Amino acid sequence: MRSFHVDSGAGIAGLAVREHDRPIPGPGEALVAVRAVSLSFRELMILRGNYVLPVKPDVVPVSDGAGQVVAVGPGVRGVAVGDRVTAAVFPYWRDGRLDPELLPQLGGSLDGMLTEYALLPADALVPIPAHLSYAEGATLPCAAVTAWNALTGVRAGDTVLTLGSGGVSLFALQLARLRGARVIATTGRADRAERLRALGAEQVVDRAAHPDWPARVRELTGGRGVDRVVDVVGDVAAALRCVAYQGEVACVGFLAGVRPKLDTGSLFAAGAAVRPVAVGSRSQFVAMNRAIEANGLRPVVDRVFSFDEAVAAFRYYESGAPFGKVVVTIGR
Amino acid sequence: MRSFHVDSGAGIAGLAVREHDRPIPGPGEALVAVRAVSLSFRELMILRGNYVLPVKPDVVPVSDGAGQVVAVGPGVRGVAVGDRVTAAVFPYWRDGRLDPELLPQLGGSLDGMLTEYALLPADALVPIPAHLSYAEGATLPCAAVTAWNALTGVRAGDTVLTLGSGGVSLFALQLARLRGARVIATTGRADRAERLRALGAEQVVDRAAHPDWPARVRELTGGRGVDRVVDVVGDVAAALRCVAYQGEVACVGFLAGVRPKLDTGSLFAAGAAVRPVAVGSRSQFVAMNRAIEANGLRPVVDRVFSFDEAVAAFRYYESGAPFGKVVVTIGR
Amino acid sequence: MRSFHVDSGAGIAGLAVREHDRPIPGPGEALVAVRAVSLSFRELMILRGNYVLPVKPDVVPVSDGAGQVVAVGPGVRGVAVGDRVTAAVFPYWRDGRLDPELLPQLGGSLDGMLTEYALLPADALVPIPAHLSYAEGATLPCAAVTAWNALTGVRAGDTVLTLGSGGVSLFALQLARLRGARVIATTGRADRAERLRALGAEQVVDRAAHPDWPARVRELTGGRGVDRVVDVVGDVAAALRCVAYQGEVACVGFLAGVRPKLDTGSLFAAGAAVRPVAVGSRSQFVAMNRAIEANGLRPVVDRVFSFDEAVAAFRYYESGAPFGKVVVTIGR
Amino acid sequence: MRSFHVDSGAGIAGLAVREHDRPIPGPGEALVAVRAVSLSFRELMILRGNYVLPVKPDVVPVSDGAGQVVAVGPGVRGVAVGDRVTAAVFPYWRDGRLDPELLPQLGGSLDGMLTEYALLPADALVPIPAHLSYAEGATLPCAAVTAWNALTGVRAGDTVLTLGSGGVSLFALQLARLRGARVIATTGRADRAERLRALGAEQVVDRAAHPDWPARVRELTGGRGVDRVVDVVGDVAAALRCVAYQGEVACVGFLAGVRPKLDTGSLFAAGAAVRPVAVGSRSQFVAMNRAIEANGLRPVVDRVFSFDEAVAAFRYYESGAPFGKVVVTIGR
Repeated sequence: MRSFHVDSGAGIAGLAVREHDRPIPGPGEALVAVRAVSLSFRELMILRGNYVLPVKPDVVPVSDGAGQVVAVGPGVRGVAVGDRVTAAVFPYWRDGRLDPELLPQLGGSLDGMLTEYALLPADALVPIPAHLSYAEGATLPCAAVTAWNALTGVRAGDTVLTLGSGGVSLFALQLARLRGARVIATTGRADRAERLRALGAEQVVDRAAHPDWPARVRELTGGRGVDRVVDVVGDVAAALRCVAYQGEVACVGFLAGVRPKLDTGSLFAAGAAVRPVAVGSRSQFVAMNRAIEANGLRPVVDRVFSFDEAVAAFRYYESGAPFGKVVVTIGR
Repeated sequence: MRSFHVDSGAGIAGLAVREHDRPIPGPGEALVAVRAVSLSFRELMILRGNYVLPVKPDVVPVSDGAGQVVAVGPGVRGVAVGDRVTAAVFPYWRDGRLDPELLPQLGGSLDGMLTEYALLPADALVPIPAHLSYAEGATLPCAAVTAWNALTGVRAGDTVLTLGSGGVSLFALQLARLRGARVIATTGRADRAERLRALGAEQVVDRAAHPDWPARVRELTGGRGVDRVVDVVGDVAAALRCVAYQGEVACVGFLAGVRPKLDTGSLFAAGAAVRPVAVGSRSQFVAMNRAIEANGLRPVVDRVFSFDEAVAAFRYYESGAPFGKVVVTIGR
Repeated sequence: MRSFHVDSGAGIAGLAVREHDRPIPGPGEALVAVRAVSLSFRELMILRGNYVLPVKPDVVPVSDGAGQVVAVGPGVRGVAVGDRVTAAVFPYWRDGRLDPELLPQLGGSLDGMLTEYALLPADALVPIPAHLSYAEGATLPCAAVTAWNALTGVRAGDTVLTLGSGGVSLFALQLARLRGARVIATTGRADRAERLRALGAEQVVDRAAHPDWPARVRELTGGRGVDRVVDVVGDVAAALRCVAYQGEVACVGFLAGVRPKLDTGSLFAAGAAVRPVAVGSRSQFVAMNRAIEANGLRPVVDRVFSFDEAVAAFRYYESGAPFGKVVVTIGR
Repeated sequence: MRSFHVDSGAGIAGLAVREHDRPIPGPGEALVAVRAVSLSFRELMILRGNYVLPVKPDVVPVSDGAGQVVAVGPGVRGVAVGDRVTAAVFPYWRDGRLDPELLPQLGGSLDGMLTEYALLPADALVPIPAHLSYAEGATLPCAAVTAWNALTGVRAGDTVLTLGSGGVSLFALQLARLRGARVIATTGRADRAERLRALGAEQVVDRAAHPDWPARVRELTGGRGVDRVVDVVGDVAAALRCVAYQGEVACVGFLAGVRPKLDTGSLFAAGAAVRPVAVGSRSQFVAMNRAIEANGLRPVVDRVFSFDEAVAAFRYYESGAPFGKVVVTIGR
């Protein structure tokens, strides 16, 4: 079996394939024949060496994958050979709060999914919704669960703001609509407005046409502001200008690459909470999958690469061009 | 101006129109030119004399109506002439719990809406969603708010069971779908299955084809049972056979006309809560309207009668034939 | 090592001790040197043969025990030799809802704790609060978790009704007070009123002095009724007479031995939910222990027996005399 | 009748008493004979001219007061002459979210309570808990409701951090204990540690003895951090060093007088939400009073001044010396 390996900070050029023996699952473990992985921004941060959590040397990268269980170790309960599964990014975070001892994560401090066979804690596995392919299932663990967590507490009738057309933002759009919320989406590329509307955005704000786009968002809500911002960019000051009194800015990441200083007075003036979101627990993943399955939601896959094209997949992802997820399929 | 009046127990034949002077709103009151009302099962109970709450003599019947504010009394805040409004069935129940002193209700212990001009506490008024007509807005106060309340706590991905095609059941179907839940609907009339599916039911159980329909419902959920039953019939024993462990039977009414004895052992064995639902607070009404407006939900209106045909409207409603709401329009 | 064994329906006389080899934990298992167990009503139901869930032949009885981990099997994470632990009654119910496949329970379909060494799934273990002895820790799994679950949603300022002085009722009293709720307690024995007050009951209703005790409870709440009834007796009709509109009757058990028919009309008239409670998940257990530890709550232990006196302990428990929990200690 | 008046920015020296005719309540209004008021930090901000919300010219200052209803206007429901009441700081914010149109506040854009007779919207009044004096009741509207709101979602067993011995912090300490939470309190004055412990603090951190007090707080929680910080100081960076992953910093005010820039990276690293708190709705006030009444909680009153000593009361409050609330009594 083959696995990609890389060291944190080695860049895309540092990705290398190596041969291994196929491992045998120990107690509580399952062996998964990986059929697809998807790329997330955390992968780039690891390759660039600026990820916020520990990364093991020579890690098998990529947190998100889907495949079929081919063997289970002793003492495994509730998982069987043949199951179509994916895995929680934080495999030990089952439910409730994320404590420090639950921080080990796939494709970081633990080996990840860019491999033909992944050895995983059986309790971390999550069945793929029946209507989804492996490629689609592989898009869920990081981006979709993050979006789901970012929407915690959003109710039907609320208004959600999404930014751009990355993986988390598109899932946030789809999942917010699934739950009966309105969505305002921003985009830097006017040609994407139609696709965002097709996914359910009621309004699309073209940031080129509206350089002061937070003012435009507020105007679209009759001056009140949105109930929730799913902020993948990290520009909290802009997000606070869009959000309603007693709304919330779910702070998902820092795509902008900078971490601006925030005026705490403006935070208080906005009257809205700022909540950092770090993926979610296995319980949240399972709850999301029930919702996805009940509504036939299909993830947006931008492009699919083969295992041998994995490096090209990373380069394409890095370009910032994708509308939705970039997937690498493995095997058959 | 003209109003219908009736005494509790006088039957449909007891409905009579009388002329009044147009009233002048006192402090905290608004005068509403009623444009439409809709009929609910409580109306029949009042006419039959078996309603569960007090009814004033010579009451102006019907709790549900919609119209336009034409005058406001002194001290009124937040309501203006010209507003398109409906009113909460319990006009003093603003939010939180329904305490006994909040039980006065329109078309019962207080005069109702089957009149050309209704004098109402301004704080009880609720704006009609912008995309709805007066006829559509008039369907909301009792049936839709009851359905919304019955769905309290239902999450995307849950499965909801609705019974038949009355007003509450159709709203429960639509509102459950709006929130991302699956719906299984039962019907006694096979010819209605298509319309229930068109409203979003994933499965329709024809009670004629499946005399043991609770068994069929359980089968459709893989043996697990549904997460919520919106029980308008009052057959709690049947509902408990359909519901999942730790699910809930929302007990809305007793269309069956009988109130069967419940075996508390079977309640315990089912492991599901039974919760009676009595319409809902004004806050719940407002929250529902936000959801209705954000999703463009349109109430199902079966037939519209004129003010002069009100008695015929009652007779038609009583026939049990309607699929959705029966409306009486007033004036223009 | 010695274990008690019994067949369902064999009665207290059917309890027998047998010698075994000390088992070796397999994958995911831990071996616990049991130091104390406590008795619950389920134990009597099993001995009488009228328990509601399956019981294995020749079962090691008693769900509730506490002890020290003496060995762990391969693949165990988060549990170490020397840990002071108890175990969840449903060892596979970690969090969320209780699904049918999670119903195996200690001292029922699985061997229980009336043994010198218990082999348990490591993930089911729960640390004992630091300030509690093994005897005190052994009182928690069934009675305290049931009480905690029965209080779900109770807020500071609510009023809770408890019935009598059994294990669940005393924990409900203490835990309700810990959370800032008022408590009204009933008792059939006037001499216990002081002890109930000492535990925090604001009012004690002597059922002998007030044969119509539900009327007395309602009177004590100014006619409004209590927000929550923790009903260990199974007389739902009486509980509904005590409860406030939109309150809840948490239906814990049927100490009365009869399962009365419930008039669904009276359920609707009471306007309160009836919710069956079946112990609780491991997550609920852990959350309760945090609360117990933060507030130094001490369980009420009525009497402690030795392992050799276990049969006498059962007979004493069966007498109905205990105020609080009956404990059997094992070993040192 | 006499009222104090002041202009925003005029300082304590700008406070002046004037005579008025006793007003007559209009529709929906009640006239309250004020018996006591209490001072809050917002009063100083208004006198200093740096309050964050609009202040009317020549305002009757002070948001918090308690008294007896002496007259009600037409259309008033649920309030009667003789009622012992206080009023919500935001009299139009009944429940749910604080929308911009609900921002008018007593002693700010509306006249306040430092007067012998206050004319108030009857729907804004809140009964005083029966066991409290007027002086005690007058401490609740701003400080206690803010503390209650800041504790939203805190559960029994959680750990709450309070800062110093001002009104909000002492209420947060008492209310957190009432709900079964642990409290760690900081103080800059070692001589206050005992009084904080007497109110229920499990640990007191002397900031003089521990200049790096956030490190000390974290140490006291075994490295995990507290679940909630009630931050009255506005040093969010310090609060984030104290808080647990997925905990919350409730941002109440800026006693420090500076509004530091916050590093959004550190916000993300802390993994905790920051939520600004602006007093609370009337519903929250009522819920808090139920809890206060059920537990016999008594507010901490540091010193009581007479109406004629009101200026001295302001100077004493401004000194920062008080442990708890400063009250001015009026009349009898």
